[in-house]
Amino acid sequence: MTARYDFASDNTAPAAPEALDALVAANTGFTSGYGTDPVSARAADLIRELLDADAEVRFVASGTAANAISLAALCRPFETVLAHEHAHVCTDETGAPGFFGQGLGLMRLPGASGRIDPESLEALAAPDVSYRQPIAALSLTNATEYGTVYSTEALEALTGPVKAKGYGVHLDGARLANAAAAGFDLKAVKRLGVDLLVVGGTKAGMPPTEAVVIFDRQLARRFDARLKQGGQLPSKGRFYAAPFIGMLESGAFLRHAAHANAMARRLAEAMPFKVRHAVEANGVFVEMDDATLGRLHAAGWFAYRFLDGSVRFMCSWATTTESVDQLAGVLKSIT
Amino acid sequence: MTARYDFASDNTAPAAPEALDALVAANTGFTSGYGTDPVSARAADLIRELLDADAEVRFVASGTAANAISLAALCRPFETVLAHEHAHVCTDETGAPGFFGQGLGLMRLPGASGRIDPESLEALAAPDVSYRQPIAALSLTNATEYGTVYSTEALEALTGPVKAKGYGVHLDGARLANAAAAGFDLKAVKRLGVDLLVVGGTKAGMPPTEAVVIFDRQLARRFDARLKQGGQLPSKGRFYAAPFIGMLESGAFLRHAAHANAMARRLAEAMPFKVRHAVEANGVFVEMDDATLGRLHAAGWFAYRFLDGSVRFMCSWATTTESVDQLAGVLKSIT
Amino acid sequence: MTARYDFASDNTAPAAPEALDALVAANTGFTSGYGTDPVSARAADLIRELLDADAEVRFVASGTAANAISLAALCRPFETVLAHEHAHVCTDETGAPGFFGQGLGLMRLPGASGRIDPESLEALAAPDVSYRQPIAALSLTNATEYGTVYSTEALEALTGPVKAKGYGVHLDGARLANAAAAGFDLKAVKRLGVDLLVVGGTKAGMPPTEAVVIFDRQLARRFDARLKQGGQLPSKGRFYAAPFIGMLESGAFLRHAAHANAMARRLAEAMPFKVRHAVEANGVFVEMDDATLGRLHAAGWFAYRFLDGSVRFMCSWATTTESVDQLAGVLKSIT
Amino acid sequence: MTARYDFASDNTAPAAPEALDALVAANTGFTSGYGTDPVSARAADLIRELLDADAEVRFVASGTAANAISLAALCRPFETVLAHEHAHVCTDETGAPGFFGQGLGLMRLPGASGRIDPESLEALAAPDVSYRQPIAALSLTNATEYGTVYSTEALEALTGPVKAKGYGVHLDGARLANAAAAGFDLKAVKRLGVDLLVVGGTKAGMPPTEAVVIFDRQLARRFDARLKQGGQLPSKGRFYAAPFIGMLESGAFLRHAAHANAMARRLAEAMPFKVRHAVEANGVFVEMDDATLGRLHAAGWFAYRFLDGSVRFMCSWATTTESVDQLAGVLKSIT
Repeated sequence: MTARYDFASDNTAPAAPEALDALVAANTGFTSGYGTDPVSARAADLIRELLDADAEVRFVASGTAANAISLAALCRPFETVLAHEHAHVCTDETGAPGFFGQGLGLMRLPGASGRIDPESLEALAAPDVSYRQPIAALSLTNATEYGTVYSTEALEALTGPVKAKGYGVHLDGARLANAAAAGFDLKAVKRLGVDLLVVGGTKAGMPPTEAVVIFDRQLARRFDARLKQGGQLPSKGRFYAAPFIGMLESGAFLRHAAHANAMARRLAEAMPFKVRHAVEANGVFVEMDDATLGRLHAAGWFAYRFLDGSVRFMCSWATTTESVDQLAGVLKSIT
Repeated sequence: MTARYDFASDNTAPAAPEALDALVAANTGFTSGYGTDPVSARAADLIRELLDADAEVRFVASGTAANAISLAALCRPFETVLAHEHAHVCTDETGAPGFFGQGLGLMRLPGASGRIDPESLEALAAPDVSYRQPIAALSLTNATEYGTVYSTEALEALTGPVKAKGYGVHLDGARLANAAAAGFDLKAVKRLGVDLLVVGGTKAGMPPTEAVVIFDRQLARRFDARLKQGGQLPSKGRFYAAPFIGMLESGAFLRHAAHANAMARRLAEAMPFKVRHAVEANGVFVEMDDATLGRLHAAGWFAYRFLDGSVRFMCSWATTTESVDQLAGVLKSIT
Repeated sequence: MTARYDFASDNTAPAAPEALDALVAANTGFTSGYGTDPVSARAADLIRELLDADAEVRFVASGTAANAISLAALCRPFETVLAHEHAHVCTDETGAPGFFGQGLGLMRLPGASGRIDPESLEALAAPDVSYRQPIAALSLTNATEYGTVYSTEALEALTGPVKAKGYGVHLDGARLANAAAAGFDLKAVKRLGVDLLVVGGTKAGMPPTEAVVIFDRQLARRFDARLKQGGQLPSKGRFYAAPFIGMLESGAFLRHAAHANAMARRLAEAMPFKVRHAVEANGVFVEMDDATLGRLHAAGWFAYRFLDGSVRFMCSWATTTESVDQLAGVLKSIT
Repeated sequence: MTARYDFASDNTAPAAPEALDALVAANTGFTSGYGTDPVSARAADLIRELLDADAEVRFVASGTAANAISLAALCRPFETVLAHEHAHVCTDETGAPGFFGQGLGLMRLPGASGRIDPESLEALAAPDVSYRQPIAALSLTNATEYGTVYSTEALEALTGPVKAKGYGVHLDGARLANAAAAGFDLKAVKRLGVDLLVVGGTKAGMPPTEAVVIFDRQLARRFDARLKQGGQLPSKGRFYAAPFIGMLESGAFLRHAAHANAMARRLAEAMPFKVRHAVEANGVFVEMDDATLGRLHAAGWFAYRFLDGSVRFMCSWATTTESVDQLAGVLKSIT
């Protein structure tokens, strides 16, 4: 029996053909390095178009590093970032924000289904005191870690008070495509006051690549030196830019995300376990006890227990209706 | 006129077909993440075979990060690393070793043509004093930044005294293939006492990828957490491992490097300018004044003035005899 | 009306005469620097005697830095430290552990009255996974932040499982004198497996000074370089060592702490508000609403609301029965 | 024979009576912490008066930390600081700037007798390139490490071009008193564009203390949190502030420095060895071979060989004409 990782994460899938074909197509001739090549320029244009915004764009290898470098750009080491307590930057990056930010803090905020509770922003009212790391930025995630999607209005309720204090805003868009496919307006990102956005390529079905979008031109100053020092200014930049060309020119970026979202809904509908969070993007989180999870693993299907205690199933561009139905059948058999 | 980057660096070339084909071939089915997949396992086996050594192997995106993380693993922030004054870690990584190592120092040693002068190791005899960062490791580069190659004996003369003090040894092998093609015995790396080796994929003709080889098993403890925090534990690990499979199984890793070295020799022979360093690997460094370099740039051929004042021409797997001859012609025309 | 800071903290008091006299006495003649002077040697001997242990001793200026440097010595940046959620390292040091430790994590454990609940050590059983910062050390505080004191047995229940895993142990002894005066056996510190101990001078009634005790000789290697880089290797070391001589030779170190503890008990007995934690050392924590605290401040007496919501009153060597009775009278008047 | 450290450094002396008396005088009553006390306020006023400038002032324990924190405040980790190659920040602080600045670089500039050669500022003209740490600040030292003193004009020639680029300026004033006593106009510091000044207390004859002067109010934002995180916001701030009161109110700050400078001149005049640098402040640097230095040590007098190969003798407030003459006699006897 071969182990099945189909639903273990949205990064267990191979790269989509549109992305890989573009990478292969870009692999021709000699070109200048470190993101100065025409492939990187073209991909940056497409991302600006996607966001309908004038901004600097860089292509990097790691979402963890992209997030951490962004937070470090918005803060000094003695400052702290507001983030959802279960945000990727808080729980899945081995302390990368503190490492790249030399000790910058994360103030973990509560909120149902991965969305920050706006009331927790009362933290902004606390006076600066020297023994505490003062707040300097807000980190958002859309789609959230629990497969829900912030509306523009919900984000405005969070970014508004933060921008009013003059603080920075980072948006982790590892699953921005899924959020957009669920109705989130990408053209609103700039208006919301986001300073630094990470557009996920990897989870959207590309080979490893993430785009860092720098809306605040002041932050762009010497950003390449920042990336280079952090190991995120690839010499062969075209390999990280090309997949975005393939996915954006073809519309596959949003189309594949819409498919992943639809597969998650299909799975949720067939799910014999209680679904804990609204299925708005590409994840399904269900209530399942350890014995049952053990039977699922024994049946050869991997799924992970998540931070809120639920078990997570992720869909991707490569998820098929057949595999959803097959998993649903297995799940029914182990209840 | 299209600008020609053929000789500007060995990372301006596209990926070799053997590497890219393997990447495409690995892009099938779902697989587990973070280097636990069978593609990564197979590539690691091939690297162990190449080095004839039992060692841990990881595949990462960035050579700059791989080097810096290696030095940080060998030192604490208050310690320093011996390195050639023109080594990549000293001059081309925007301070990445100090960033990843939180201030770890680099003690820059002299030496002709990029090779550390063994006499400069007298620094090892200096007593530890609290106001100075004490030595904790040696960083070597083979092939060197000046296209020369250390012999096993020359390396032994450097690693011997360092290991005798109980210090660590890092080998930057961004151009290890070129060194090997020039006669450097890869099977000697472990015997030399190297603790951490970075095997360059990118400059060897692959899409972005580097292999970190951990000879000292004690250093392997929690190395994945170290990499993850540093943004160098790719979720889709197979994309960084597969190119090594393609290049190693086919023998292209060494064959392409031998070709690059041969192209450099061909260029050196046709060179109308004084060649400053022995052409043992894939680079040719010549003496050229600014006016002449300006004429070369005006002719549409890029080349950079290097740290020792010479102008550098790099060859790669993709360099052709035609392009060498064409460049040689241009060079003659501007003398 | 002059504001009264008598009970605001145990660092609002002046230095005790024994400490200051010794400092003045040491201020004679020329001497060698950076802790190599005879005053520092004598003070180190006295601390070894106090602890009945062979250990390296250094004198530094800051408890925050001493704690943070200790944790950084026990961990690498990708690792984490177990600590009580309200420990000074977690709440009062502006992220110093993450700064000095370049992102090292703090795993905040619960426990009544500032003592870590031994059941929370089940965290030790969790397997290392690369996305999480693995545990590398335990940080303890005695006396605790809530004026309670760990018994030797209670500490053993915490250090035992941690040492069994091979991890490090740090003891923040900012109020070690108060713990000792309350019965904690200082000679047990080494036996408990503590690797690095910070003995508080400042809160014990000295001018600013803390002693770092290095029980694990392996950690002592190059510790001076670590301190120097961290700004904690004073050139005029005698000024930080001398106060310890004055306090230890005279017995004032424990005698003053016993007095502070007694003053806290006296205050607790006269307290018209509910005392929340056992008064074992020199602090009294009471339940008081905001309006009442406002009246206290309006009456010119400073006290701070603490992390658990209680209001804290600290006693020191300089607290008098008169001032305790005076405060008690004010407190009664505002109920 | 007791070893003589009189001339080994200017930090081997005891504290001057004016400084210590003020410390003792400040040791009365309870007071608020972390620099909010009246003693700190008064000392800050005196420093503003000394500099004839409106500025924020903080009192810290360590000059090494004060310098490093200042540079970290002026730079991000991927940037670099211009400094004299033999400046304290480059050679005597165990890499503290890189540690506190998480890898920030130091670009070492040449210049005779510790003064930066203005021509070396041509480095400012180099374009930012991502592989190099771009310049962000200039670090100056007055008096210099070689006992010379910059004139206002000489400093202007350095700060002018740096400020014109919008970069920051740090002045290490560990021996600012000696510079002032030699004629340097302290009221010019602000006009020169210095953003952060460290006024040395320790080498000026105080117990350990340094004043950080923040001329640029924008840098003052959250500076206390920065200091606290770096272990340099003393809870008992009055102990670091009081010595400045004693020295400044009495005029001893400049008077003692003038004495130290005079003692250096006296020593230079009696010196049987060639004096290498102009004796403008409190140090004398002479040419002496190893054998002779060995005889000096054997005679019980400590002196250190410095970075330029000369042997350094430092005078302080506590140096007497008798000890100068005694040393001169010993020196003559060993020639």
